[in-house]
Amino acid sequence: MQAYDHGGDIYGNPGVTLDFSVNTNPLGLPEEVRCALQSRVEEFARYPDPHCRELRGAIAAFESVPADWILCGNGAADLIYRLCYAMKPQKALVCAPTFSEYERALQQVGCQVEYHILAEANQFALTEKILMQLTPGIDMIFLCHPNNPTGSLIPLDLMERILNRAQENKTLTVIDECFLDFTDGESAKRNLRDMPGLVVLKAFTKMYSMAGLRLGYLLCSDANVINKTNAAAQCWSVSVPAQIAGVAALSLSDWQDRTRRHITEERRLLSEKLSSLGITVFPSDANFLLLRYAKPLYESLLQKGILIRKCENFKGLDKFYYRIGVKTRLDNIRLVEAVKEIING
Amino acid sequence: MQAYDHGGDIYGNPGVTLDFSVNTNPLGLPEEVRCALQSRVEEFARYPDPHCRELRGAIAAFESVPADWILCGNGAADLIYRLCYAMKPQKALVCAPTFSEYERALQQVGCQVEYHILAEANQFALTEKILMQLTPGIDMIFLCHPNNPTGSLIPLDLMERILNRAQENKTLTVIDECFLDFTDGESAKRNLRDMPGLVVLKAFTKMYSMAGLRLGYLLCSDANVINKTNAAAQCWSVSVPAQIAGVAALSLSDWQDRTRRHITEERRLLSEKLSSLGITVFPSDANFLLLRYAKPLYESLLQKGILIRKCENFKGLDKFYYRIGVKTRLDNIRLVEAVKEIING
Repeated sequence: MQAYDHGGDIYGNPGVTLDFSVNTNPLGLPEEVRCALQSRVEEFARYPDPHCRELRGAIAAFESVPADWILCGNGAADLIYRLCYAMKPQKALVCAPTFSEYERALQQVGCQVEYHILAEANQFALTEKILMQLTPGIDMIFLCHPNNPTGSLIPLDLMERILNRAQENKTLTVIDECFLDFTDGESAKRNLRDMPGLVVLKAFTKMYSMAGLRLGYLLCSDANVINKTNAAAQCWSVSVPAQIAGVAALSLSDWQDRTRRHITEERRLLSEKLSSLGITVFPSDANFLLLRYAKPLYESLLQKGILIRKCENFKGLDKFYYRIGVKTRLDNIRLVEAVKEIING
Repeated sequence: MQAYDHGGDIYGNPGVTLDFSVNTNPLGLPEEVRCALQSRVEEFARYPDPHCRELRGAIAAFESVPADWILCGNGAADLIYRLCYAMKPQKALVCAPTFSEYERALQQVGCQVEYHILAEANQFALTEKILMQLTPGIDMIFLCHPNNPTGSLIPLDLMERILNRAQENKTLTVIDECFLDFTDGESAKRNLRDMPGLVVLKAFTKMYSMAGLRLGYLLCSDANVINKTNAAAQCWSVSVPAQIAGVAALSLSDWQDRTRRHITEERRLLSEKLSSLGITVFPSDANFLLLRYAKPLYESLLQKGILIRKCENFKGLDKFYYRIGVKTRLDNIRLVEAVKEIING
């Protein structure tokens, strides 16, 4: 079977007691979500609502968009594949490094994939150079905002220029904002009404630590894109627990603010401590950090029960790069101490 | 958005107190599964095991097949689409009437679909006539065993002839056994080792009343089919609750026997009572019954809070056909009484 090349494989690494390879919210699964699930297990026996009516209503209110613009999926990753199956792009553009599922999904429909290489000299930030590759022959582009694994947001003016160019060229533009709510960045969703070729992708996975429940959604004002993507899979792809958890999560009032405050503070601390140990820490707006270190860290940390994300399978990176999630203060300190021991020992 | 044309839409019919449109086990979600889920909600925060290691181990023991032959999915319906995306058949054969997702999934890959019409004169049973349509040009065939919505099993000798013919012709043969464990029928899985082109499809949905949790699996001895179907979707398609529930369900010792005894007795009762009211009840080996009645029943039952499955959207049936699940004694009697009132009133 295909090798697994993402974070979070605690099942294949049973000695792990601290998982820095995943980017879920260190505040954990919200208590309200846990209670909703425990008290409604009986409903798991029923077929899910194929139209996710209640959940889409809650998302519509949260995102301030019409419910018709929302399609829910079995995690955002599910929607990436469904979009490709539905829209059948022949030529697409993705960045490198970025989340590998875009490329994989595109390859499933035989799409030719072009790469826009993000330069390390520029801290892997997206620049206007991408506009040169946004030619009329590109059917689809995936942009991760902030980018995974680098954590950088797309600057607002560059985003506008990209979206305008894509619209001129009739390029379907997917802006993956699965990590956006951890940052102070602005969503591309303000352009949805004017740009039917824009798809914004979001997930509950990270912000609400619901990775195991699988719940993501996309926003798009073009009914054709919504309907085709919906028809590209079974009608029951969003489970009952996912729908219950999603509604419960969106009823929380200050979860996102608390999370952002926590992440901002802990990211700064982690970044400072690791830099002071001689590790290159790339600037990040998100709840994870890309690191470079000239000596191996992965195996030695694993021996201490700490899993981090090796980045060698990201196009454009190699075995000297690692990604870590920002966790609780206690866990972050544990990581820093472990790294210190390895480097000094 | 696409119209929903399956059973179980209690969300669009909020007045329903009794749902005969779904075919899930009337014994409900097993207590052991409910407890396992409630006590392990904390784990829903983690990414699921992409390889479903523990679950596949449990299925391997239950089905007496190697774990390598098993691929789990987000319900059996997920695997139907993934098989089509992975194998890209150009010409396929399906029966009519049968479960509509086969045709829909095939159409997503532009496949030409041929139909084998099941004759009402023959109680919609599958006969050797299908062999004439199993020509070398057919890349893929879906057979539902027992068939939905008719409930008939494929006779053992006919199954052998079909599988042999399909193997000669290199036709990928998908035998959907999602309802088989409710019957006394024999599984096609005994042929898996000798027939790499055979795929057996199963689900927890119906037998364990886990429709909302989404868990199905396929069995196939061809690593190429397994790997391609796995790669045709995201790696996290099976949620943590689904994996926990599946393992808990398979630890039950007499659930399937108890279920079969219940279904056999209640199906006989329902069939007799409805026949005595002048309704045509087709013979069924499964936990549901196909009915025909010359006057409308759907709306009048809905007014009494009872939802049944209209069958007019099944190719080969029309508005005079209905499907009902076999439920508990109390619920079955409630249905019979309601039908009696409608017919006599």
